[in-house]
Amino acid sequence: MPVETKKIKVVSKADTDMINITEEVSHILSDSKIKDGIINIFVPGSTASVSTIEYEPNLVNDFKDATERLVPSNMKYKHHETWGDHNGKSHIRATLMGPGITLPFKDKKLMLGTWQQIVLLDFDIPARKREVILQIVGD
Amino acid sequence: MPVETKKIKVVSKADTDMINITEEVSHILSDSKIKDGIINIFVPGSTASVSTIEYEPNLVNDFKDATERLVPSNMKYKHHETWGDHNGKSHIRATLMGPGITLPFKDKKLMLGTWQQIVLLDFDIPARKREVILQIVGD
Amino acid sequence: MPVETKKIKVVSKADTDMINITEEVSHILSDSKIKDGIINIFVPGSTASVSTIEYEPNLVNDFKDATERLVPSNMKYKHHETWGDHNGKSHIRATLMGPGITLPFKDKKLMLGTWQQIVLLDFDIPARKREVILQIVGD
Repeated sequence: MPVETKKIKVVSKADTDMINITEEVSHILSDSKIKDGIINIFVPGSTASVSTIEYEPNLVNDFKDATERLVPSNMKYKHHETWGDHNGKSHIRATLMGPGITLPFKDKKLMLGTWQQIVLLDFDIPARKREVILQIVGD
Repeated sequence: MPVETKKIKVVSKADTDMINITEEVSHILSDSKIKDGIINIFVPGSTASVSTIEYEPNLVNDFKDATERLVPSNMKYKHHETWGDHNGKSHIRATLMGPGITLPFKDKKLMLGTWQQIVLLDFDIPARKREVILQIVGD
Repeated sequence: MPVETKKIKVVSKADTDMINITEEVSHILSDSKIKDGIINIFVPGSTASVSTIEYEPNLVNDFKDATERLVPSNMKYKHHETWGDHNGKSHIRATLMGPGITLPFKDKKLMLGTWQQIVLLDFDIPARKREVILQIVGD
């Protein structure tokens, strides 16, 4: 079976919360029937993203500071007039970074670097439940 | 047949024009022989990109404003001396965002969020025709 | 065989060195047994990325200048306190751009634009050896 669809459920604190999902992704891959291939890690929704990072608390904070400098919270976003919410920055950060990443795996193991973890980035403001889709394609 | 190559033709107004291609991508997927898998949405060329967004006019404008703040038009780019054109910002925006995205689908349907659309971002300056490649891989 | 794993070895000068790997990727694809599909180009490690660009020296410099403006070298990053190194900017740039890209190919040829090359971006500070993973999936 060359395609498997799996899902991870995450509860985020939001407002650029960064959640390490590496263990759950690795666990799902090790249980898969597909041995070699690629895994597409995708978050449905327009205010979140996925990337990799060395997941240590200081760097996690540095990254939040950087997103705040690049796409500030306290600006007037026209989007706020559309729905009356205040998450213009959340949308823009998510669109800039894209909705997901694709990673290679071999022998049911991710080919990540030693200091490289997979993270869900939730840019939205309220705490919320997120679902991350894992689409596994290979042999 | 586990791989299908399709193309979408788009006419952009350019200079960070953002075009919603969700319907065309969905339509092509529903006509595909592949039921489950991933779709790679790729734009050939070095001044355009693909991402997802909640496609509503105010947010589209907010995003254009953000790209202008992050990679301004009115800077001296050395690239302008190479060819005598003025699209240094267009290249840099495209390289930052990358040339495409990969999305999961199931039962010939994209697994997007409710408020999440697929967009072509044309950062180049003149209006132009663009071709977007859809590479469908799965089962 | 629908999945092939290949590797490219690169020696980077680092500190946002940008290395054109298009020829090596093209060569590996032309030698592959897979005719049509997608190629995932992934760099293990948390201080490097992959994208596409028109690879000409002036634009390469413009891009380095842009990353320096967006994520400056001379800031206080808390990450520096964790390990005593000074590559906070390197990590942030890599996380923003993501760890890799996925590209379509047909008849063993990349479907790139005429002026579009694949580049490894090494944001780390010391010169170092990098390994880029090419995961080829298709038919």
